[in-house]
Amino acid sequence: MSAEWKLNSHLASDTVNIGDLPLSRVLIIKDSNYPWLLLVPRRAGASEITDLNEVEQAQLMTEINRVSLALKDITKPDKLNVAALGNMVSQLHVHIIARRTSDAAWPRPIWGVVPAIGYDPVEMDAFKTALRKKIWLD
Amino acid sequence: MSAEWKLNSHLASDTVNIGDLPLSRVLIIKDSNYPWLLLVPRRAGASEITDLNEVEQAQLMTEINRVSLALKDITKPDKLNVAALGNMVSQLHVHIIARRTSDAAWPRPIWGVVPAIGYDPVEMDAFKTALRKKIWLD
Repeated sequence: MSAEWKLNSHLASDTVNIGDLPLSRVLIIKDSNYPWLLLVPRRAGASEITDLNEVEQAQLMTEINRVSLALKDITKPDKLNVAALGNMVSQLHVHIIARRTSDAAWPRPIWGVVPAIGYDPVEMDAFKTALRKKIWLD
Repeated sequence: MSAEWKLNSHLASDTVNIGDLPLSRVLIIKDSNYPWLLLVPRRAGASEITDLNEVEQAQLMTEINRVSLALKDITKPDKLNVAALGNMVSQLHVHIIARRTSDAAWPRPIWGVVPAIGYDPVEMDAFKTALRKKIWLD
């Protein structure tokens, strides 16, 4: 764990950076099918939640709660989906997705169901600003 | 939240009960395609992680870690998948799944990919006993 943490290149190219919480980088996935965020703990070499120590795990839960509440408040979803999978990209990352019963994949999980649709730049900017404000990243 | 907690009937019929941790009931999903556990916090009315208070959230993370480590130790997976989705059953439940690069759904998430295959009773009994021992439910 002595190496420096660096965001995985696939995660970097699929996302817009919102800012850093004490443990995790907060990212928006560039897919307007769903309001879809990632939390990426800045710990080199971590691929599982169990790779974090107890303090980091507690902090990750705090950040999941904080970001979930912000996403919920902004998007008023029918359900949140929270998941650490990592089958394609092993760098530990937690998906937080606002689901609607009218969305493209409902009630299935979203992964691999429909191709990503890019954001309108104005819409992305508004989402980013609202999130930064609600998560207290400003 | 004054109502008494009761395990959702769909979750009950799909699982074998392993025992109770301080917050969550631990269950094995009856699908031998994957070593697949559920943690169900015994809190009436909770459907999101954000429905738990701060202490319960921290305890949930502690239990996720404890059960993940046990599952990892017993099954030696290539990856763990940890997820709170709840699109079909809204009662809050956390999936902890041991994934292998050779399993039926890899690298996709497991939900809805292949039909469940029942366990051999001897195999289920061995899995249950190993889990109870590792999670310290004995």
